[in-house]
Amino acid sequence: MGVVVRRLSRGSTTSQTVVSLRHASWRLYSTAFREERDTFGPIHVPADKLWGAQTQRSLQNFEIGGEREQMPEPIIRAFGILKKCAAKVNMEYGLDPSIGKAIMQAAQEVAEGKLNDHFPLVVWQTGSGTQSNMNANEVIANRAAEILGHKRGEKFVHPNDHVNRSQSSNDTFPTVMHIAAATEINSRLIPNLRNLHTTLLSKSTEFKDIVKIGRTHTQDATPLTLGQEFSGYTTQVKYGIDRIMCTLPRMYQLAQGGTAVGTGLNTKKGFDVKIAAAVAEETTLPFVTAENKFEALAAHDSFVESSGALNTVATSLMKIANDIRLLGSGPRCGLGELILPENEPGSSIMPGKVNPTQCEALTMVCAQVMGNHVAITVGGSNGHFELNVFKPMIASNLIHSVRLLGDASASFEKNCVRGIQANRERISKLLHESLMLVTSLNPKIGYDNAAAVAKLAHKEGSTLKESALKLRVLTSEEFDSLVVPEKMIGPSD
Amino acid sequence: MGVVVRRLSRGSTTSQTVVSLRHASWRLYSTAFREERDTFGPIHVPADKLWGAQTQRSLQNFEIGGEREQMPEPIIRAFGILKKCAAKVNMEYGLDPSIGKAIMQAAQEVAEGKLNDHFPLVVWQTGSGTQSNMNANEVIANRAAEILGHKRGEKFVHPNDHVNRSQSSNDTFPTVMHIAAATEINSRLIPNLRNLHTTLLSKSTEFKDIVKIGRTHTQDATPLTLGQEFSGYTTQVKYGIDRIMCTLPRMYQLAQGGTAVGTGLNTKKGFDVKIAAAVAEETTLPFVTAENKFEALAAHDSFVESSGALNTVATSLMKIANDIRLLGSGPRCGLGELILPENEPGSSIMPGKVNPTQCEALTMVCAQVMGNHVAITVGGSNGHFELNVFKPMIASNLIHSVRLLGDASASFEKNCVRGIQANRERISKLLHESLMLVTSLNPKIGYDNAAAVAKLAHKEGSTLKESALKLRVLTSEEFDSLVVPEKMIGPSD
Amino acid sequence: MGVVVRRLSRGSTTSQTVVSLRHASWRLYSTAFREERDTFGPIHVPADKLWGAQTQRSLQNFEIGGEREQMPEPIIRAFGILKKCAAKVNMEYGLDPSIGKAIMQAAQEVAEGKLNDHFPLVVWQTGSGTQSNMNANEVIANRAAEILGHKRGEKFVHPNDHVNRSQSSNDTFPTVMHIAAATEINSRLIPNLRNLHTTLLSKSTEFKDIVKIGRTHTQDATPLTLGQEFSGYTTQVKYGIDRIMCTLPRMYQLAQGGTAVGTGLNTKKGFDVKIAAAVAEETTLPFVTAENKFEALAAHDSFVESSGALNTVATSLMKIANDIRLLGSGPRCGLGELILPENEPGSSIMPGKVNPTQCEALTMVCAQVMGNHVAITVGGSNGHFELNVFKPMIASNLIHSVRLLGDASASFEKNCVRGIQANRERISKLLHESLMLVTSLNPKIGYDNAAAVAKLAHKEGSTLKESALKLRVLTSEEFDSLVVPEKMIGPSD
Amino acid sequence: MGVVVRRLSRGSTTSQTVVSLRHASWRLYSTAFREERDTFGPIHVPADKLWGAQTQRSLQNFEIGGEREQMPEPIIRAFGILKKCAAKVNMEYGLDPSIGKAIMQAAQEVAEGKLNDHFPLVVWQTGSGTQSNMNANEVIANRAAEILGHKRGEKFVHPNDHVNRSQSSNDTFPTVMHIAAATEINSRLIPNLRNLHTTLLSKSTEFKDIVKIGRTHTQDATPLTLGQEFSGYTTQVKYGIDRIMCTLPRMYQLAQGGTAVGTGLNTKKGFDVKIAAAVAEETTLPFVTAENKFEALAAHDSFVESSGALNTVATSLMKIANDIRLLGSGPRCGLGELILPENEPGSSIMPGKVNPTQCEALTMVCAQVMGNHVAITVGGSNGHFELNVFKPMIASNLIHSVRLLGDASASFEKNCVRGIQANRERISKLLHESLMLVTSLNPKIGYDNAAAVAKLAHKEGSTLKESALKLRVLTSEEFDSLVVPEKMIGPSD
Repeated sequence: MGVVVRRLSRGSTTSQTVVSLRHASWRLYSTAFREERDTFGPIHVPADKLWGAQTQRSLQNFEIGGEREQMPEPIIRAFGILKKCAAKVNMEYGLDPSIGKAIMQAAQEVAEGKLNDHFPLVVWQTGSGTQSNMNANEVIANRAAEILGHKRGEKFVHPNDHVNRSQSSNDTFPTVMHIAAATEINSRLIPNLRNLHTTLLSKSTEFKDIVKIGRTHTQDATPLTLGQEFSGYTTQVKYGIDRIMCTLPRMYQLAQGGTAVGTGLNTKKGFDVKIAAAVAEETTLPFVTAENKFEALAAHDSFVESSGALNTVATSLMKIANDIRLLGSGPRCGLGELILPENEPGSSIMPGKVNPTQCEALTMVCAQVMGNHVAITVGGSNGHFELNVFKPMIASNLIHSVRLLGDASASFEKNCVRGIQANRERISKLLHESLMLVTSLNPKIGYDNAAAVAKLAHKEGSTLKESALKLRVLTSEEFDSLVVPEKMIGPSD
Repeated sequence: MGVVVRRLSRGSTTSQTVVSLRHASWRLYSTAFREERDTFGPIHVPADKLWGAQTQRSLQNFEIGGEREQMPEPIIRAFGILKKCAAKVNMEYGLDPSIGKAIMQAAQEVAEGKLNDHFPLVVWQTGSGTQSNMNANEVIANRAAEILGHKRGEKFVHPNDHVNRSQSSNDTFPTVMHIAAATEINSRLIPNLRNLHTTLLSKSTEFKDIVKIGRTHTQDATPLTLGQEFSGYTTQVKYGIDRIMCTLPRMYQLAQGGTAVGTGLNTKKGFDVKIAAAVAEETTLPFVTAENKFEALAAHDSFVESSGALNTVATSLMKIANDIRLLGSGPRCGLGELILPENEPGSSIMPGKVNPTQCEALTMVCAQVMGNHVAITVGGSNGHFELNVFKPMIASNLIHSVRLLGDASASFEKNCVRGIQANRERISKLLHESLMLVTSLNPKIGYDNAAAVAKLAHKEGSTLKESALKLRVLTSEEFDSLVVPEKMIGPSD
Repeated sequence: MGVVVRRLSRGSTTSQTVVSLRHASWRLYSTAFREERDTFGPIHVPADKLWGAQTQRSLQNFEIGGEREQMPEPIIRAFGILKKCAAKVNMEYGLDPSIGKAIMQAAQEVAEGKLNDHFPLVVWQTGSGTQSNMNANEVIANRAAEILGHKRGEKFVHPNDHVNRSQSSNDTFPTVMHIAAATEINSRLIPNLRNLHTTLLSKSTEFKDIVKIGRTHTQDATPLTLGQEFSGYTTQVKYGIDRIMCTLPRMYQLAQGGTAVGTGLNTKKGFDVKIAAAVAEETTLPFVTAENKFEALAAHDSFVESSGALNTVATSLMKIANDIRLLGSGPRCGLGELILPENEPGSSIMPGKVNPTQCEALTMVCAQVMGNHVAITVGGSNGHFELNVFKPMIASNLIHSVRLLGDASASFEKNCVRGIQANRERISKLLHESLMLVTSLNPKIGYDNAAAVAKLAHKEGSTLKESALKLRVLTSEEFDSLVVPEKMIGPSD
Repeated sequence: MGVVVRRLSRGSTTSQTVVSLRHASWRLYSTAFREERDTFGPIHVPADKLWGAQTQRSLQNFEIGGEREQMPEPIIRAFGILKKCAAKVNMEYGLDPSIGKAIMQAAQEVAEGKLNDHFPLVVWQTGSGTQSNMNANEVIANRAAEILGHKRGEKFVHPNDHVNRSQSSNDTFPTVMHIAAATEINSRLIPNLRNLHTTLLSKSTEFKDIVKIGRTHTQDATPLTLGQEFSGYTTQVKYGIDRIMCTLPRMYQLAQGGTAVGTGLNTKKGFDVKIAAAVAEETTLPFVTAENKFEALAAHDSFVESSGALNTVATSLMKIANDIRLLGSGPRCGLGELILPENEPGSSIMPGKVNPTQCEALTMVCAQVMGNHVAITVGGSNGHFELNVFKPMIASNLIHSVRLLGDASASFEKNCVRGIQANRERISKLLHESLMLVTSLNPKIGYDNAAAVAKLAHKEGSTLKESALKLRVLTSEEFDSLVVPEKMIGPSD
């Protein structure tokens, strides 16, 4: 009891208090405590929480970052999936079926997010994720015991001997990292990127006949269609999906069965294959057991690799969103070729001001993904011997990147791309004012005469046609038949 | 009303549901709505929330990342400080005192964190932070109106005309970024780094007489004291504090008074200086008005700079934590020179296993800070014209880095460094086995003979003394008088 | 002439002078100049150089970084390949065969590196690489003219009309980027990684029976074999090769045929397919024409992607090299499990000191590759409209990373891994001292008794056996039959 | 001899051959060899080179990257400075004056770059830079011996005993890192940034009366002057210089005197202070001895810090260059407010096309500096115990960043900023078309009427005045007196 009281009184002198007020924290509304024990002795735990002694110690030893920094929910849910599968396979190897079934039921609740309030630990804990593994073991054990009519804390179902049977944090945590990442990529990111791809493709088709000025080095260049311009974006997103998919074969490899150092000590032969199959069945994703468990514990190269694919997607989306906001700049003093959807009032001062806010949210997300990628890279490069101990940080960053890219792609598709319109009048005006259409005169009047036409027009601010007629290099009819942007948008026969 | 209902039904098919269950979301327990309006028309807002129409639109247009991604609390509090100061200064310029005082009171509540539940917007919104500025304006206006006996939504106190008077999002958001960052650095990070420095310094003193083997290239080298080794860490932290302090002069410059593009349109002369002074008084930090408001809106170089200092601190702490876990490795098969505090049970299998978990949490934080720094750099480099629109992302990452470094330094100091003990027996054993002590024989027997002594000892696995006696290059007494590690730890007279 | 003279006199006041002295610069030994012309007028060019006016202007306008920063040689050679293929295909479309053949011959000399001295331009030029494309055009045109018996500068063979026919810098430069990168990856990096993989695999086999202590969190853990430990490294390198190979399909797509903005203006239908086929034949690599030329000019996502794979390989190699230097630390006061080859004298003071210098060179390379990756990412994300103008920087960094990783892997394999020996005596000593072998007593005497044995041994610094006998929990024979590390290195039947 | 021959025959099968042809390599024109020795035995060295055995071994053991990767020249020159100073101070402590003076003379030649050809080693060597230190010792020893009338290789002047006296690679290499970095920053970077600042400031003054449209979110906003816009850039560069200067106090701290592990073993008391003073005198920079030598060897936080300042400067310059190229986009279809100098022919097809090539070179440099910064950060965070062994990589990247930023700033100033002209006609046209000037009507006709005016103008594509008159909200005279952009560029009285 004393421990908790000290925490509260200390907390009240820091901004922790505010966090506590904001979120319904256990610290304040927990009016009763029970005693839990581990090899360090007894410790008080809030009576209404399912966690045990090791979770409680981690809470007290790692006051880093506050509740925003709690282990990401997909990791918690993946623990539910894994522990359910482990119980199932352990029953094949002799685990008492009544206990096994209770564990499966409790784990299913974790997998469904029903027990999220019982997972208070932050990312910034032990680098193996051991404390979160024990959090899962303790919560499931207590919940399973309750299902079987026993009390919390009595260890009728034991966190280690039953829930963690044949497992070590060192193989469970990398396993839930892979389950969580693969699930989030498949359920959240890929579908949203596919939607974005579809919408960009339809815009590319919608705009296929709109000939416009091209721009290279930000300067006027030869023409292309707006559809062609959007086909570039479409291809970037398409390849982005391919890039992510290419990295998944290594993400589908599960460390489970390696236990403490990769050897599989304390498992039975075949356990690793069975549990990967069970996870695959549970998630309907093609998980397999890792070919080499030593690599699977000691390195997280597959996360660095997948993050590299996300980083590439981020560069693509940054480019696309930048183009769209610049092409939509204006309304009077910018390029003004695109009309972007108005989603919110612009400034209270300036009517007609549409801010490309979806582009802004998306490009901020892209910068974050690039930063997260560096964090993952640094963590991935710093493993020692049999275990990389940057696991929670690596997992958290990848899941963060997946979530942000997925959500932002969806928001960008729905609130921006879908509603983009071409400003045909503006596009046409710019196209026909452009001096580089002179290029098509080269075959008829020669490069030098063509250059003279362009330079005169540039100097006098006139049209190419006016300049050509003034220089008497060709007739009005000849000019009109030669200067046809629509013929400049592809190779010739 | 329809809008909200659609949101809920759509939400229920995604993992948002779970988030809603986990945190007490407005979406579920808000049983009533009121109508708020902006230039886009009416919109339903939860009756128990103080925010208005523009906040509500942002909530619906930027479903990115969920509640974990809400604008960091220090930004919200800084809005409270700024809006309070703005009302105070605006009263000098003619704002109705009764309204001004109500705004000050409401803003004070925001500054104290009492209204945090009314700030639901995420970081991934418009890149100017306009929506969070409007969130602050709306909440304060409604709360001030209530204070004055009026109803929410009636705009007796107007979000723009009163609360945002003489301001633009384009100057308020960079201002709150600077207030939040400077406050967090001063109140959270610097004190914790100072504590860490003090403890390292005391360890350096405590260990000043313990002579130990030095290691370069991870290989045995000439000796030094454990105190000298810790003095290196101490110096790194000391300089880290200096580095951060060096960047603050530019962080103390406030953009307020620049309004939309830096010109100060719609302010009165002197407003910028007065409001900086008011903020300085309120925070007791030496804020001043920015020398150039165009720079202050269009770039966030001061954040890139401060983040660079944090990045340097992260490299320092990564080095220190790595050394400590390696020096503490063992207990039998590592270097074993340090004994680290045991804070939690190690493995349930392996008694005596102490995992250097505080080092792990800290090094993960360091990797995160390095990643955040890249995100800030990318955002900082991507401003366009009169406004950088990566503001919320930049702010969020810097505040994240400050919080994590501050908390992790405190945790590391308290739960690790403070309790480090030297394993004197082990240190002495390694020192005296070391072959490089042969160096001190050079003056007496020459480099070639000394080399022969060392090579024989290396080959035979014997001590240097055994080898020297076997080779008959000196007597036992001579050896003992010459090979004295304690004389090898400094320059000679 | 004046231009050159001014350069020389100005140069002499800066450190450029030294560079000039160091490398045999054209500026000093060129005693004669000829006049070349472009649309800006005449300019002096060193008489003994093949380049023309546009190259000379770039030399004078971009004095950035000095000769170290010249365009990487693989890019120059790739220009040779491309221009040869372009001449071949252009002959099919009507290019005069005598000129075409001379171009092919001159381009072949560029491809073989024979004309490297005529490519003086640095990476830091126009972001499209136009100036290097013109450098190639000018050199090949002048050389081809000489082959045909004409003088330099007379434009008998024209840089633009003949050598650059049907091409634009905007499609040639991305094409040579892809040719250079794919060639370097295939010829330099992959073979060296395969060699490293083979050697690691053979070490894994060589060490398969050496049981050793495992280490997690840098702390003693359950045992594994040294071969198992090396199998993790082997797998990392194997997957690294897979990762790189996975990115090549997009690297094999060539932009050629897109010309200025991706439309293929000024090419004939089919040109793009034919030239990709010609490059494929010339290089024996499976190049194809890019599916979408707009993407191929406006973005370099394929470089960001491949760099992401290299970044992953760098994290793998960083981990491996770190492990090896720590496992080889000593000789007396480190872990000392591995004996690394001695390649150079250690310190002149300390006999027996072997510095793991190959590990150091490799880990420095890994850090560089991580940095280069960020540069590529930033460049890749900053394209505008129809053209990314960070091309030379992106190309230079990727080729740098490929070269460094390839060379360093080869050096590490040859000068370190190949010669690693196990220090069997040391490994055995550490293994048998380890307290975690107590784990195998659990089934016989129970966890509590086993813990008591370990704790006593830890406290008294005794062996597990001594402790067990002292506590009378089992006999000497029982202990010897139960504590067998060799049985702890895999799952049980 | 055999060694060299094998190298040549092997080299001929790789691309090394080409490099050899390109640069005048020792391998080909060295027709004679002499024997040098170290503790590993004899080795052949090219007769015309001054280096000795340890340099030669490094050449052969680290074939990584080729000649482009040689240790940067400022490091070589700094070795000259340091070794000269060391000889001077060593004479005070008893070094034979004739040898000391010869060393000083030889070292001076190194400092002046006269012996650059004798420093062939690459960055990718031992991470302590030991081999480059020995390269300096060997070259200076042989050269000093020649000065004294002795032959190379005879060690009349000894590389270790004389040239390296009282020194260790572990303190010399960090010392030359600091000397080289501080010198390059002061002589190359700061002056060029100051020039750029001066020119931007003069442009800001030149443009102070040109009122133009502001742009936020890339969209039209309230006006400012072009001079105000440039004042933002000016301030960024000014602060950039401040940022770099702020980091120098820690860069001026020299490790010299710490020798092998920081203790100063084998030096006399006072040596460290004297040598720092000598270096300060030689360089006229305020170098001092490092307060803590353990930190100075084991970490390179000062490089991470300075690189962080360079990274900030890179984000500033990226922003400035991006703005300038976008403001100069056109000539017909872009923003067109700035006219940038034409330095080279644009496309051979498109007359009038000015590519903002200086902006492109500069932004590529900025991306490189950001990447180099990450490499430095990774290296800086990875030190172990008494020595960071990423020294050459860290040094090389910082010097690279300094050189590139310095040169690119100079090129940008000279070839771009200095010649920027305002397109007053275009600026005026855009300004007066802008709808946001309606803001100034608010006080007269109210926000709602003003909004109606703007919306009608936006809808009909008319001017604000036309719209206002059509809506009959004010007279032509009233409009003209109210809508005056020149009054919108500052706070009101």
